[in-house]
Amino acid sequence: MPIGNNRFTPVTNANASPNVQAVRSFLLGLQQMVCQQLEQVELAAGGTARFVADPWQRAEGGGGISCVMQGGVGLEKAGVMFSHIVIDQLPQSATERHPHIAGCQAEALGVSVVVHPANPHAPTSHANIRLFVAQPPEGPAVWWMGGGFDLTPIYGYVEDCVAWHSAAKALCLPFGAGVYGQYKQWCDAYFYIKHRNEPRGIGGLFYDDLNTGDFAQCFAFMRAVGEGYINAIMPILHKRINTPYTPAQREFQLYRRGRYVEYNLVYDRGTLFGLQSNGRVESILVSLPNMVSWHYGRTDSADSAEAKLLTEFLTNKNWVEL
Amino acid sequence: MPIGNNRFTPVTNANASPNVQAVRSFLLGLQQMVCQQLEQVELAAGGTARFVADPWQRAEGGGGISCVMQGGVGLEKAGVMFSHIVIDQLPQSATERHPHIAGCQAEALGVSVVVHPANPHAPTSHANIRLFVAQPPEGPAVWWMGGGFDLTPIYGYVEDCVAWHSAAKALCLPFGAGVYGQYKQWCDAYFYIKHRNEPRGIGGLFYDDLNTGDFAQCFAFMRAVGEGYINAIMPILHKRINTPYTPAQREFQLYRRGRYVEYNLVYDRGTLFGLQSNGRVESILVSLPNMVSWHYGRTDSADSAEAKLLTEFLTNKNWVEL
Repeated sequence: MPIGNNRFTPVTNANASPNVQAVRSFLLGLQQMVCQQLEQVELAAGGTARFVADPWQRAEGGGGISCVMQGGVGLEKAGVMFSHIVIDQLPQSATERHPHIAGCQAEALGVSVVVHPANPHAPTSHANIRLFVAQPPEGPAVWWMGGGFDLTPIYGYVEDCVAWHSAAKALCLPFGAGVYGQYKQWCDAYFYIKHRNEPRGIGGLFYDDLNTGDFAQCFAFMRAVGEGYINAIMPILHKRINTPYTPAQREFQLYRRGRYVEYNLVYDRGTLFGLQSNGRVESILVSLPNMVSWHYGRTDSADSAEAKLLTEFLTNKNWVEL
Repeated sequence: MPIGNNRFTPVTNANASPNVQAVRSFLLGLQQMVCQQLEQVELAAGGTARFVADPWQRAEGGGGISCVMQGGVGLEKAGVMFSHIVIDQLPQSATERHPHIAGCQAEALGVSVVVHPANPHAPTSHANIRLFVAQPPEGPAVWWMGGGFDLTPIYGYVEDCVAWHSAAKALCLPFGAGVYGQYKQWCDAYFYIKHRNEPRGIGGLFYDDLNTGDFAQCFAFMRAVGEGYINAIMPILHKRINTPYTPAQREFQLYRRGRYVEYNLVYDRGTLFGLQSNGRVESILVSLPNMVSWHYGRTDSADSAEAKLLTEFLTNKNWVEL
């Protein structure tokens, strides 16, 4: 079954047993690679901030390594978080979409990345890839993957949006002609700030419940997404990280970051599930920017770059052909 | 029936019909009084910021006046919001606790206050009083009141906490000996940041579903809470608004404001209901501070004032005898 056709219907297949160790190795390597390349961005901005690795253990089983850079000249806050947690008995609440595995042993592993550059011309970005495996008392493991990446510009650049979506499309293509379109639209629908009637950003890819019955194929897609994020974001960061900016542009950035916080705390399933399930709060909320502001009743004149962010960029448009 | 004994069991009483106009007049007067007195605080801090009144109408019925001060020297952000909205048909979702009035005509009116001082020694405060009235096709109106006030210090002062709770206790006393204790504990339980295992602040009063069967009595309690907030907060603001502070104390203030945002966006029933029900977003989110920061993994040495905020102030302790 091709990638992209199995939304909400994970397949269980005895011949498709997941290789958790291989995924874990890949994720740990990806985490290192992302940190190294982000440190290059910080260097390019004339900064000396570095990632600090903070390993943690979870009393209930498993743990993770949160790598965080704070206060950089180029990257104001960046988190690259690996976690691999083990769950003795899946609670009902965690398996709403998959009630047949309630009570099972399970494990979840993944890498999450959030990067908040200091420069308002450099977009905020987010990526996540994850594998979930539940082991029923009898029969094969039930597993699925999820993830994606999305971009949140403060000042929009058409060429960046096109490059970002071109990278997303290119990585999907080997997995089927419709994959990019489906996961692009899913991303648009997912990262939407309903109370503001605004998309969070210009999107990218989002998928969940992915199990085609072929573990190797799904794992290849996971790798493509993780590596695709690096290939897509680094050129944009290097291009924008030294663009001169004004205090007013910085103020607009802090204001727009408020939207990011609103989305993550009000809507983001991963964040809310983490907070409700006694997850590691500091690692979950590392996604929130270092400096944020809310201003009552801000307005921008219609032809300003600030207004155009909403009218020309945050529109869920198709930046490349689906 | 005394105030405080009817939690979750509003009484409908044909002799107790609500005087919405009287409540509306009181609320509008209270809004003005709070604004005037907060402007005195701003003046005392050497600032010139003033409240700007922003009247708004709701397409579905009713409207409000949001009075907002921003960028003050003393008060970084303060919102004093009056609203009086009319609902044609109460949705099921809005009446979970009162399913018998689903589909009824209803109106809700209230005043909400949030004050974020610039000075970290001056606490953030919040107050809210409201009346809800539903009119079934036949029979008397169904109504109840809710509200309260609570204090969120950044740097704790025992005398402020005692004064705050003494004022809360004093205003409750004419309504019954147990009122303060009950509503103080309800406040502690309500303003709790579960994922941090932290109270939001040092509490105050919180009540909902208040209908003793005696409208005049309940309205008198509402007035006592609204006026009690003014009497409790203004002396504290005047005492702290000019205390010298360091950049490190300011940084801690922005960090602690992150907790305020987390509470309001993840837990606060009023905020979430407003966002979900297509409420006026700018008026709802005026509660969020102007400048906020999140820092991964902040730690403070055990004997610092910053650490003592958690160990000695945010403990839901009894500041005065219940």
